[in-house]
Amino acid sequence: MERTCGNGTLRISDAGKTVTLIGWVARRRNFGALVFVDLRDRSGIVQIVFDENIADQIKDVRSEYILQVTGTVEVRKDANPKLPTGEIEVHAESVRIINSAMTPPITIADETDSLEDTRLKYRYLDLRRPILQKYMMLRHQVCMIARNTLDSRGFVEVETPILARSTPEGARDYLVPSRIYNGKFWALPQSPQIYKQLLMIGGMERYFQIARCFRDEDLRADRQPEFTQIDIEMSFVDENDVFGTVETLMKDIFKGTKNVDLEEHFIRIPWKECMSRYGSDKPDLRYGNEIHDLSSIFAGTGFQVFANVLNAGGIVDGIKFAHAAGKYSRKGLDQLQDFIKAGFKAKALAYLKMEKGELSGSIAKALSDTEKQALIQEFDMQDEDLVLIVADKAPVAQSSLGALRVRLAHELEIIPENEYKFLWVTDFPMFEFSEEEGRWVAQHHPFTAPKEEDVDKLFTDPGNVYSRAYDLVLNGYELLSGSIRIHDQELQAKVFEAIGLTMEEAKARFGFFLDAFKYGTPPHGGVGIGLERLIMVLAGTENIRDVVAFPTTNSSLDLMSDAPNVVDQRQLDILGIELSEKTKKNL
Amino acid sequence: MERTCGNGTLRISDAGKTVTLIGWVARRRNFGALVFVDLRDRSGIVQIVFDENIADQIKDVRSEYILQVTGTVEVRKDANPKLPTGEIEVHAESVRIINSAMTPPITIADETDSLEDTRLKYRYLDLRRPILQKYMMLRHQVCMIARNTLDSRGFVEVETPILARSTPEGARDYLVPSRIYNGKFWALPQSPQIYKQLLMIGGMERYFQIARCFRDEDLRADRQPEFTQIDIEMSFVDENDVFGTVETLMKDIFKGTKNVDLEEHFIRIPWKECMSRYGSDKPDLRYGNEIHDLSSIFAGTGFQVFANVLNAGGIVDGIKFAHAAGKYSRKGLDQLQDFIKAGFKAKALAYLKMEKGELSGSIAKALSDTEKQALIQEFDMQDEDLVLIVADKAPVAQSSLGALRVRLAHELEIIPENEYKFLWVTDFPMFEFSEEEGRWVAQHHPFTAPKEEDVDKLFTDPGNVYSRAYDLVLNGYELLSGSIRIHDQELQAKVFEAIGLTMEEAKARFGFFLDAFKYGTPPHGGVGIGLERLIMVLAGTENIRDVVAFPTTNSSLDLMSDAPNVVDQRQLDILGIELSEKTKKNL
Repeated sequence: MERTCGNGTLRISDAGKTVTLIGWVARRRNFGALVFVDLRDRSGIVQIVFDENIADQIKDVRSEYILQVTGTVEVRKDANPKLPTGEIEVHAESVRIINSAMTPPITIADETDSLEDTRLKYRYLDLRRPILQKYMMLRHQVCMIARNTLDSRGFVEVETPILARSTPEGARDYLVPSRIYNGKFWALPQSPQIYKQLLMIGGMERYFQIARCFRDEDLRADRQPEFTQIDIEMSFVDENDVFGTVETLMKDIFKGTKNVDLEEHFIRIPWKECMSRYGSDKPDLRYGNEIHDLSSIFAGTGFQVFANVLNAGGIVDGIKFAHAAGKYSRKGLDQLQDFIKAGFKAKALAYLKMEKGELSGSIAKALSDTEKQALIQEFDMQDEDLVLIVADKAPVAQSSLGALRVRLAHELEIIPENEYKFLWVTDFPMFEFSEEEGRWVAQHHPFTAPKEEDVDKLFTDPGNVYSRAYDLVLNGYELLSGSIRIHDQELQAKVFEAIGLTMEEAKARFGFFLDAFKYGTPPHGGVGIGLERLIMVLAGTENIRDVVAFPTTNSSLDLMSDAPNVVDQRQLDILGIELSEKTKKNL
Repeated sequence: MERTCGNGTLRISDAGKTVTLIGWVARRRNFGALVFVDLRDRSGIVQIVFDENIADQIKDVRSEYILQVTGTVEVRKDANPKLPTGEIEVHAESVRIINSAMTPPITIADETDSLEDTRLKYRYLDLRRPILQKYMMLRHQVCMIARNTLDSRGFVEVETPILARSTPEGARDYLVPSRIYNGKFWALPQSPQIYKQLLMIGGMERYFQIARCFRDEDLRADRQPEFTQIDIEMSFVDENDVFGTVETLMKDIFKGTKNVDLEEHFIRIPWKECMSRYGSDKPDLRYGNEIHDLSSIFAGTGFQVFANVLNAGGIVDGIKFAHAAGKYSRKGLDQLQDFIKAGFKAKALAYLKMEKGELSGSIAKALSDTEKQALIQEFDMQDEDLVLIVADKAPVAQSSLGALRVRLAHELEIIPENEYKFLWVTDFPMFEFSEEEGRWVAQHHPFTAPKEEDVDKLFTDPGNVYSRAYDLVLNGYELLSGSIRIHDQELQAKVFEAIGLTMEEAKARFGFFLDAFKYGTPPHGGVGIGLERLIMVLAGTENIRDVVAFPTTNSSLDLMSDAPNVVDQRQLDILGIELSEKTKKNL
């Protein structure tokens, strides 16, 4: 169909040209004998003027009708600075109504007051909103850049199966009953982890895939039952090679989509240091406000509360917020204390305010002058500064202050916009103790390599074994995780043993995968980058549904197509399954 | 890990350089004090020489060990012309054994005599075969080109859901039971058809996706339960726009992967003409041998067999193969007859051979001299030419000769290699009569637009309604199908009625999708290109498993991971399903 350009591309330099446009009616206004129509296509909106000679032809035209219009671009007398095309309008000379439309059930505009559930039900209309189109194009652009960057660095995209093997512990697996082998099931992969490691064993050397992943869990606001991962794996590498690849990727993506030049290399902080400095394994580095360990200041303190904590092996941690003293009343500080009591089982929150060169606050009277001076010096405290202190077991104190760090940064509005602070968090603990299972479990997955110097602690001190796992954090969000994998069978056997698996149990769980390690496995490692999270950061939205074309609700419902739905008995019969009695009763 | 270049990249111009290589031992040969190792990586194979100073360090090294070798590139005295690196070898100065390997259970080489089932079980080793690596890289390259071409033409890649709605007739749907909504199911999409049309309704205008599709059918040799489609949809277009896009795409892919320049535009033949000329809707145009309709020659014939067929409304069709008379004995021709009797219910195969200017053969005596002369002229018959004739109902005669055309072209080896003959087959029948259901059904899908001039025959003569569906055929393979879709609600209602669906039934089946058409649907159309088929043609392989990283057997088994497999009762419990009694008994 004839069309000379996109509606949103017209500028004052086009004045005088005859154009043919196609688009949806975004708005129609009558103005005496004139009719003004905002015509929208993927490129944007332009105003069309229908004069009395032609207005009659569109007398029935309403919102979301599709028109093809030929006319002349003219300079507007009253420019609209909100529109990129606002300096011109198109004077219609002929018009063809391509399709009609019923009144849409939602408002199709960037600013919409339609309910999200209604928008999800009519997602095909919601997608006409220019901002959602922009997000979809951003997502496409990021994938294009990622593929071209990785391709140019010798990575090969390989599609791995969606119909995969269920793992025996796969409570989070979506299952697919087999028609040919009744009673057996496929599982949708939570990630291509095993396949990509097999590709390394298969000699692919550099693999990537923008891969669909599936996780059947009770959804949180920022999760969808299916999601996408930029999945990367490399052979013959250490952390530096993986980090270099990801850094190049991020630089290309941020340059290509936001024209932002990222730093050459991202800083790296080991997990342990990260926890003590920021109380989080995904700190937002757009602001400072680091946690200080005040334990040495309070060694031998007369303040019994702190002394007891320190004697019990705990720590005293503090964090400063400049110019914040006046913004937190006693009541406000009580709320902060409630927040960390509820969230982290912290016992209490102490605070100090600097006012006219003097410290006041909940514990001011309990501290010695030496201690006060040491604190002022430690934090370089100025008038109006606020210091929050938690004395507790280290993880509690750190997590509490880490959470307060984030909360106060938002409340105090100290977070700079349009800054992108990347951080590699490295050297995660290899294991964590599962109270539920009464044993050590792998924190990342059991194929993650332990740090070489910690291997001899696998059995004697598993809590102090660190791994070659890493996360990339951006502005407080975990963008990816990954690790250098084990490629040595003996070490793999030891790790299984450390998490209480016999080789027999390991075989039952990972069978063919363990076999594969016997035939010349290269050292390898990689990452999985959460695509939706990355696009959300780039788009500046907190709603994952903004960056997914056809999302589900938080409770995993597709309101548009009404899925999941009931199926014919015949379909179940050929799969050799039936609904349980309880299910039938509840349907 | 240090590595200066890929093993397969070394050439005589590198002689004298010191290189560090990494790779798998493809072969090890002892030659007196010298040891020769073929070291393989993704880029290829190079010969390494270990002299007596260093050979001892690799005394335990066998096939598939991984080595890191530093050495000097030297010119070989006895060049190996079979290897791209055959003019040089690397004289090892130091070596590090990176990993060991057990003896692999399959032969890792392009020419392997290992059984396919064994290769599938050890797919991670099979993938080390250089030819499979080449296929995987070819597949990647095709996808890269496709994405860049489509991106540069304004197409946006959008990911559509894998967890989708089951259609009530979805006997071929893979189902996924919902844990949150026990008794309800998702279905894996057979294609993104509905989503891509919704994206057009959503104003995306130009969409593509390299999309995973799923079809639960009894597998044929060239099918896999999951496969990939280059899926394209465009708004405000007719056939010319779609064809132009696909032609550009194919030209870029063939240029980029095979350095072949395709013709500017592919020829187009309407389905009806295609059937009468080639007896197939996917003819191989690398050779001629068109079918001739001989009915006018035999109008009023005295040969009773032909006369009866013509009187009953049938046709007499013939096809010529030059220089083939001597290659088909009476017995050979009987086999051809059996072939079309079995395959197409043809009643008989007649043949004529030109020998010394005279026609001989099964029906020679029954024909008049005029008829013989007319045949000689019709086919421009020369000595040694063979003409095969089938008199039957038109579809039978055409299909029979179409199949013989293909069979003899192979047997006579008249198919030129390295030629790529594309063909658009257009104007498919809109409906076909389903004997099973006793009604007309949509041949493509019910959203395909009928030809405008045939709309008034929807109810009076559905068998003669043609559609705006099209296929792209390459060398006898169907590469894609697609159509211009219906975008008008009233026409859609008529088409449903024509296939015996009331609006109510249509709503029950396509509900939300039909709703979507009410709100300003643009004219649109598109295609779905079978990626595996395209790669197979480019790779020159007939085995779909050659172009899929982790394929299943023809009976849909993953021999590597042993999937599908049985799952825990607990997993079924949380899904609210159980195995039927029959299934349990058979497990």
